[in-house]
Amino acid sequence: MYAELKREAYEANVALPRHGLINLTFGNASAIDRAKGVFAIKPSGVDYAALTADEMVVVDLDGKTVEGKLRPSSDTPTHRRLFLAFPGVGGVVHTHSTHATAFAQAGKPIPIFGTTHADYFNGPVPVTRKMTAKEIAGAYEWLTGEVIVERFNALDPADFPAVLVNRHAPFTWGPDVAKAVEVSVALECVAQMALSSLQLAPGLAEIEPELLKKHFKRKHGPGAYYGQG
Amino acid sequence: MYAELKREAYEANVALPRHGLINLTFGNASAIDRAKGVFAIKPSGVDYAALTADEMVVVDLDGKTVEGKLRPSSDTPTHRRLFLAFPGVGGVVHTHSTHATAFAQAGKPIPIFGTTHADYFNGPVPVTRKMTAKEIAGAYEWLTGEVIVERFNALDPADFPAVLVNRHAPFTWGPDVAKAVEVSVALECVAQMALSSLQLAPGLAEIEPELLKKHFKRKHGPGAYYGQG
Amino acid sequence: MYAELKREAYEANVALPRHGLINLTFGNASAIDRAKGVFAIKPSGVDYAALTADEMVVVDLDGKTVEGKLRPSSDTPTHRRLFLAFPGVGGVVHTHSTHATAFAQAGKPIPIFGTTHADYFNGPVPVTRKMTAKEIAGAYEWLTGEVIVERFNALDPADFPAVLVNRHAPFTWGPDVAKAVEVSVALECVAQMALSSLQLAPGLAEIEPELLKKHFKRKHGPGAYYGQG
Amino acid sequence: MYAELKREAYEANVALPRHGLINLTFGNASAIDRAKGVFAIKPSGVDYAALTADEMVVVDLDGKTVEGKLRPSSDTPTHRRLFLAFPGVGGVVHTHSTHATAFAQAGKPIPIFGTTHADYFNGPVPVTRKMTAKEIAGAYEWLTGEVIVERFNALDPADFPAVLVNRHAPFTWGPDVAKAVEVSVALECVAQMALSSLQLAPGLAEIEPELLKKHFKRKHGPGAYYGQG
Repeated sequence: MYAELKREAYEANVALPRHGLINLTFGNASAIDRAKGVFAIKPSGVDYAALTADEMVVVDLDGKTVEGKLRPSSDTPTHRRLFLAFPGVGGVVHTHSTHATAFAQAGKPIPIFGTTHADYFNGPVPVTRKMTAKEIAGAYEWLTGEVIVERFNALDPADFPAVLVNRHAPFTWGPDVAKAVEVSVALECVAQMALSSLQLAPGLAEIEPELLKKHFKRKHGPGAYYGQG
Repeated sequence: MYAELKREAYEANVALPRHGLINLTFGNASAIDRAKGVFAIKPSGVDYAALTADEMVVVDLDGKTVEGKLRPSSDTPTHRRLFLAFPGVGGVVHTHSTHATAFAQAGKPIPIFGTTHADYFNGPVPVTRKMTAKEIAGAYEWLTGEVIVERFNALDPADFPAVLVNRHAPFTWGPDVAKAVEVSVALECVAQMALSSLQLAPGLAEIEPELLKKHFKRKHGPGAYYGQG
Repeated sequence: MYAELKREAYEANVALPRHGLINLTFGNASAIDRAKGVFAIKPSGVDYAALTADEMVVVDLDGKTVEGKLRPSSDTPTHRRLFLAFPGVGGVVHTHSTHATAFAQAGKPIPIFGTTHADYFNGPVPVTRKMTAKEIAGAYEWLTGEVIVERFNALDPADFPAVLVNRHAPFTWGPDVAKAVEVSVALECVAQMALSSLQLAPGLAEIEPELLKKHFKRKHGPGAYYGQG
Repeated sequence: MYAELKREAYEANVALPRHGLINLTFGNASAIDRAKGVFAIKPSGVDYAALTADEMVVVDLDGKTVEGKLRPSSDTPTHRRLFLAFPGVGGVVHTHSTHATAFAQAGKPIPIFGTTHADYFNGPVPVTRKMTAKEIAGAYEWLTGEVIVERFNALDPADFPAVLVNRHAPFTWGPDVAKAVEVSVALECVAQMALSSLQLAPGLAEIEPELLKKHFKRKHGPGAYYGQG
């Protein structure tokens, strides 16, 4: 019944190891059908090499499985929280990609040092606060979504389509899940470059605001002129 | 006679270079049949590309070869020591994977900075003491197993399915050898992330105990809810 | 009409991801036909995997598209500025390759520490000054070319077939676009080696002038004796 | 006439990019037939992808080409110098592999921090002195061999089957050229591990002499017991 949505989520999931963003089963991607109020997500702990589109699990926005025989990803409540909070988002991706995760573990935002970063993010990639012992002991995965939403209190998720969950790893999103995968690729790339730039120049200042604006606006919003428009 | 066991050990061995964990012949995997008291292990110094399942060497727990024409891995006594000491272990893997080995060479445990690590290990990955000149001059490979066992005096090998042998490289294990391979992949991954996190934040504190517990228990023990259970 | 030129530009573009120099659509290559006064360049934002030779866009030196249905790369004015300023150049390549971009972001030239570097560049790889707010707000891509040309005021582009645009990423060039691709590969390689050498020896002095001259001249100019000449 | 020797050299040359040790045409391998006093080496500047066994150039120990239409590698005199100085050597390999070259550029030996290193080298990997302006202006490639030989004044090339040429890159060797390729793989691997270990523990002490001896002797000399011997 949700064949197209499952196909879309499946394609995004299998793209992750192909881009070198995922080892073993460390990650997941989901795609939402806003009209039907459901999203398709990877089943928990299934090897990417063995995964089929048909195995994707379809979940509604109350968290109930509406199609699929397998248990959905343990991170499903985090995806659900983001879909509820960010109405413009069509797909969510979670990876433990090496360099982005190194920043998350260190609890540091990824500083914005160049145009590669500015093509995707309208400033440093934000990091959440640490979760409290109470949050961790509670509805942990749902509350992981909560601390992300809290961090975006004053931020537009279209300006910053990624976040680092403190001590954990990145989540990315986009108008569709294919775009969220693209952001995950770009995120890992800018994280690695930022670490290397810091090694070359400790204390390096961030990009000048006018250059940030120029590059972000080249690709986003009404004046964008990158691509085939 | 041990076709199934040899097949299992063979599959684990050839997975190691495929995961980028092994260069040349730097490593080996073994699988045990507890009922028969024997384990199958890679023959010494044979190129992975040329390896066949039939060439696996079957050794009993006294160290006697019971099937196979080739000499078993020179590290066989270390595997044997671990199988004898850790009754819950069904497979052992030894690699010289780059970043885990960098920690082993430095004689430093891998600090636990995030949830990727906590999904696999219930704390920092332990490192053994250095071996003495007498141990090195003696039954070296058996005693390599001994210093590992000594290090696990107060540790549960199910909580810490990996060790760094000081100046040498990692060993990992699991309920079966496929799981031990998975732990080797995760270990290299968390070692690389930990090094990068330290470069971003020298002196970084380790993960909060409640988050460690949460993630480790998500995947291990009676309350585990990750995967298809 | 420009089938051969488009083929040449196409081959160079698809070589970039194959050499690991490009993620997503971060880069472009162009080839010029000096007699006809036109160059072929990648269309903007098109995925490398889907790209065809026929989709290359042919642009004249006034910036007018003379063949092709798609919009040319947003970086086309930078390529055009370089073709106009550097008459010996037959091809231009732009990438965001990881380590070269790390130097560009840090605003640092790539120091010349060894013969790998000296085989391709007659000194450190230069970096431009930062662009002004006015330049960024103006004809940005054309002025990106301008600051490169300004940097080469006293440098021969044949001696230094690459530049780092400050806060941005590298451009390379050569007598033909295949050579410009080769320089991009070498550039990323020497950038990575330079970073590692600096990590081993902070403050490392650059290569001795006589060794630089020897290696550069082995491959360039009338006395060159490398290759099949 | 030298079909077998050319085949052997060819196989070694094409193994280098396959092992990720060579970009573009940065390297070469040669194999000697001691009885006939000739060695086969890669032609200069030829792309590895296009290389054929028949194109290998056969050179005698006076440096005269005895078979082959192409010009031999520009590094041929270095190989020849090593074959003349080290009678036990059957093959020589030269690469610019990333991490080994980073040490060479920094003029630093690769410190011996673990057993991976000790399995191949009986101590730190030596680095030559810098070449003088006069040597560089003279018979440069032959004198590159000379400074290597000078460095091995008090070292056995069987104990240290690799050297870093200061400011340049590594050469390795072995009883045959396939073994020299294997040493090149191991060298890059230990160089990367050593850099990472130094990042974890600046000032790290080298391996204890008894452990070095144990591992080197496990693989080399009359008491070796590694492999199928």
